[in-house]
Amino acid sequence: MACIVGDGEAETGALAASWHANKFLNPARDGAVLPILHLNGFKIANPTVLARIGRDELADLMRGYGHEPYFVEGDDPARVHQSLAGTLDVVLARIRQIQDDARALPAGQAPARPRWPMIVFCTPKGWTGPKVVDGLPVEGTWRAHQVPIADVGKPGHLKLLEDWLASYRPGELFDAQGRFRTDLAALAPSGARRMGANPHANGGELLQPLRLPRLGEHAVMVHRPGGVQAEATRVLGGFLRDVMRLNLASANFRLFGPDETASNRLEAVYEVSGKQWMAEVLANDTELSSDGRVMEVLSEHLCQGWLEGYLLTGRHGLFSCYEAFVHIVDSMVNQHAKWLAVCGRIPWRRPVASLNYLLTSHVWRQDHNGFSHQDPGFIDHVANKKPEVIRVYLPPDANCLLVIGERCLRSRNRINVIVAGKQPQSQWLDMDAAILHCKTGVGIWSWASNDEGSPDVVMACAGDVPTLETLAAVTLLREYVPDIRVRVVNVVDLMALQPHTEHSHGLEDPEFDALFTVDRPVIFAYHGYPAMIHKLTYRRRNHGNIHARGYKEEGTTTTPFDMVVLNNLDRYQLALDAIRRIPRLADQVPAATARYQATIERHRQHVIEHGEDLPEVRDWRWEG
Amino acid sequence: MACIVGDGEAETGALAASWHANKFLNPARDGAVLPILHLNGFKIANPTVLARIGRDELADLMRGYGHEPYFVEGDDPARVHQSLAGTLDVVLARIRQIQDDARALPAGQAPARPRWPMIVFCTPKGWTGPKVVDGLPVEGTWRAHQVPIADVGKPGHLKLLEDWLASYRPGELFDAQGRFRTDLAALAPSGARRMGANPHANGGELLQPLRLPRLGEHAVMVHRPGGVQAEATRVLGGFLRDVMRLNLASANFRLFGPDETASNRLEAVYEVSGKQWMAEVLANDTELSSDGRVMEVLSEHLCQGWLEGYLLTGRHGLFSCYEAFVHIVDSMVNQHAKWLAVCGRIPWRRPVASLNYLLTSHVWRQDHNGFSHQDPGFIDHVANKKPEVIRVYLPPDANCLLVIGERCLRSRNRINVIVAGKQPQSQWLDMDAAILHCKTGVGIWSWASNDEGSPDVVMACAGDVPTLETLAAVTLLREYVPDIRVRVVNVVDLMALQPHTEHSHGLEDPEFDALFTVDRPVIFAYHGYPAMIHKLTYRRRNHGNIHARGYKEEGTTTTPFDMVVLNNLDRYQLALDAIRRIPRLADQVPAATARYQATIERHRQHVIEHGEDLPEVRDWRWEG
Repeated sequence: MACIVGDGEAETGALAASWHANKFLNPARDGAVLPILHLNGFKIANPTVLARIGRDELADLMRGYGHEPYFVEGDDPARVHQSLAGTLDVVLARIRQIQDDARALPAGQAPARPRWPMIVFCTPKGWTGPKVVDGLPVEGTWRAHQVPIADVGKPGHLKLLEDWLASYRPGELFDAQGRFRTDLAALAPSGARRMGANPHANGGELLQPLRLPRLGEHAVMVHRPGGVQAEATRVLGGFLRDVMRLNLASANFRLFGPDETASNRLEAVYEVSGKQWMAEVLANDTELSSDGRVMEVLSEHLCQGWLEGYLLTGRHGLFSCYEAFVHIVDSMVNQHAKWLAVCGRIPWRRPVASLNYLLTSHVWRQDHNGFSHQDPGFIDHVANKKPEVIRVYLPPDANCLLVIGERCLRSRNRINVIVAGKQPQSQWLDMDAAILHCKTGVGIWSWASNDEGSPDVVMACAGDVPTLETLAAVTLLREYVPDIRVRVVNVVDLMALQPHTEHSHGLEDPEFDALFTVDRPVIFAYHGYPAMIHKLTYRRRNHGNIHARGYKEEGTTTTPFDMVVLNNLDRYQLALDAIRRIPRLADQVPAATARYQATIERHRQHVIEHGEDLPEVRDWRWEG
Repeated sequence: MACIVGDGEAETGALAASWHANKFLNPARDGAVLPILHLNGFKIANPTVLARIGRDELADLMRGYGHEPYFVEGDDPARVHQSLAGTLDVVLARIRQIQDDARALPAGQAPARPRWPMIVFCTPKGWTGPKVVDGLPVEGTWRAHQVPIADVGKPGHLKLLEDWLASYRPGELFDAQGRFRTDLAALAPSGARRMGANPHANGGELLQPLRLPRLGEHAVMVHRPGGVQAEATRVLGGFLRDVMRLNLASANFRLFGPDETASNRLEAVYEVSGKQWMAEVLANDTELSSDGRVMEVLSEHLCQGWLEGYLLTGRHGLFSCYEAFVHIVDSMVNQHAKWLAVCGRIPWRRPVASLNYLLTSHVWRQDHNGFSHQDPGFIDHVANKKPEVIRVYLPPDANCLLVIGERCLRSRNRINVIVAGKQPQSQWLDMDAAILHCKTGVGIWSWASNDEGSPDVVMACAGDVPTLETLAAVTLLREYVPDIRVRVVNVVDLMALQPHTEHSHGLEDPEFDALFTVDRPVIFAYHGYPAMIHKLTYRRRNHGNIHARGYKEEGTTTTPFDMVVLNNLDRYQLALDAIRRIPRLADQVPAATARYQATIERHRQHVIEHGEDLPEVRDWRWEG
């Protein structure tokens, strides 16, 4: 049983969606929620909307939200106290009745969705505080939101303050020595009944590690880099199905998403558990279940709120979301990050499972949705949080996604952001290689490099599409400049780029220099806004030679390759960048530039004429 | 009259708050809103919640939102067409009646808040599309959300596609040559009745420039820098009051805020216009008006949505918001930025007034609200948008805020973010100096500098609190190192730091070098997350010498000065940073470090003991 107390207007704001949460509760299985709308009439400087629309309209709203409202109203503390206690008895009995009825049903029969009770609690704002200050009413007005007696130096104010404080009858609460009376102190709950010591408020106390399937069972067989195609999130979906299966008995894992589980290719989980649904079910519906462990509702706010509550009460989860729209919960993420940062410094706070995001349907593959669905900025948003709290992963293929996904489900007290595409694409690493690569988080791909310790250029990449373009650029470079020495560096763990002093995952300077050199050009193809690469690497010795490409807010409804062309992240651009930055190739730059321009023009014409990418781009495969 | 069509579940999500917008509409004066909830039952892969809660519960919800629902339901196109047309007639007549009644009231009598009609339009998802594909129902299910016949190569699929397309009876629509029949084409609206040519859809066509008061009338008299204290936003409030007054007749300016207009010290506007309010009014209410031009509701989403609509229909506005909570609308800002970027490339799109944010009650002065209210990351969020769209201003005092405020109200097609505090603080520039300083956006404060063209150190600052700390650090440095040569550079226009090639406000390299030198240490005190300074300046010649301080997610409920101490942005830290970075002072570093540590320890003890800052900090004033 949880209880939510809202003030009189927050429910018109960001959390309005949370009112609909009750529509997913199964009375036979779940706890109940008892919302209390504290309708005290005012906020900072105004009346609240819901206090002034009339009780009938308010009751309609609460019923529309799926609740049966019970009103408790008054301004005489003793009477209201009794009235609230009596109503709580009624309401709790009603909840118990709903649950008992549902639990008495024959096994396998889903209970009907009940109308859960809720309380509208109407008392004056600033109740029992100063009635009037400086001739203006305070109790029962918005003025009570602030410090009611701000300047005790003013005539009469000290007396007002004294009268107000005396109204709490301190003489009955403290003894002659000013100590709180022990018989009154003894009324407070003790042990695990104390608010902060209740294990439900310190969810780590209840946390059980997930049972996780073996990665090898889900690995994509990759005999040689680029030799096979797969959809990364679909592979992860198989892994998540088994996570669901292995932990079904402990009932401590859920998947959350704004109606995107299948769209994001994770639908294998339905083989084990359906989508939680308590509203009406029709004949053609699929995968709906009154006992489902997949939470789908087209409200990122509700998904986020559900998952936060689930984690903070000792369970595990993953939120899969279209990359662009996870910004809807930016403000909620801020508060969770602050919570984790503060809890990390409180010794008795037990670790909770991490807040895991799988951002997919990402910026580079919004072929039919277009510009409105293209935004990789959530990485930037979380990167401002405390380094001990956040992790950002850009697995380049399915096996790396599996390794990172498992790591995130094992981790505690973090906000993990994983960005991975759902489209079929070349696979690079077998499982053993993926495990090693993800362990350091960044590494040289020797199978794609021929630098023999002294590259002309480092071709760096982070993200699945940038990795593809980088490898294609490498093949172009070898064709254009047969004796070129190229090193390919792939970054999975974005925070590895930061100095070790800033982030525990950050590479030490000698490690960074060993990968990125101290004096060679680095062409960095990055999944998101390119300035992020500079923000992370500006203290590195070779920073002046790092040239980053990424999303620069160019996009429309177009082909996959045209998206990277529009943002100058395409293989032809990366190859040209390399030639331009390698000193010994200076005399080739004019010809390379002309070739680049001719190729891009050919690409543009082809896309306009055929509505799809050039065959040599669509059919490109890494041949090694 | 505007019409909003929502699908069956978006109303449980981010836009739930928008349903309450109707509660602010004045039928005697405003247009009406006619929401149409298109309840077609499904979204990407699931039924919608509102389609499955029963019509009674849904009607309750709509009534709770303040509407009277009219249901139009069916699956026979011809009948539904007639039914919708008939209902539209009824509903439009009802709206007209509401407006006529309100407008017939005696002058000065406020109309009662009406219950506005709305339509629930229930038709099958994928209506008139393929009924069944591969043996699975498509019309009337979630499958219709996707491409209903994905692979026309499959047996029978081409025939299905042909039958479906033939159902539109192309033989009746096109002539023998395949041309669209001219008599049918003539049915489309022409001229300004065309959707894209309607001036209300191209709001710039209707835009009238604001009449703006003279800045001099609102200027703070500053006889010498630091010689007077003022609250910057309160000064801007006087200016906005006059903006409101001068444009009252044209009714094209509004102020928006989540119940924070007074909290943000802008309440002078109430002298001209109250807060729009159509719900019940009680005796002790103040400033509420059925004809108010200040829009207050505790929903950042609703404020943002209102303002976007207001701007796009040719009017002007300003959104004042607590800095931390403007993240609530991050996702909406993304879409507006994309809209502006795209419209900028469409020649017939007329410029609209800019989306102006005043972010106040900012990170550094959340003395009693604490950590949850501290987040300066909105700047980072907008800085990823197209450079031609965004501007970020950090006026250091009231006169600069006036200059920037006026500039933003004059500007077009921008997203302007202004960050300015509301607390009393020292004023630095008189109005003439403020105008000059804001014109370039960044400049040397010669009255605070003594570098004679060759500084030991550049003390740079952006933001009101960092500017105060920097100037205090300069006085400390002069005391510690009497012969020190210091240059103070203040940045108002953050984008001036970017290269000119990246942003039109960016300084040319020689200009930047003239301010920040090419070889001297720069101690940069910045309002937000410090990595932003590196992101903007990494291409500058002197970047390796720029050392930025800013918010690093340290905070709690504490004194104003303790906040800057916790984040190493305080005057003592900045002075120590300078001494550490000036080569000729190397031998002073150990003593300076010891002095710093002793001072900070003294500060900590004082704050713990007295709950307020050290007298020398509280009472510090610039003496020149």
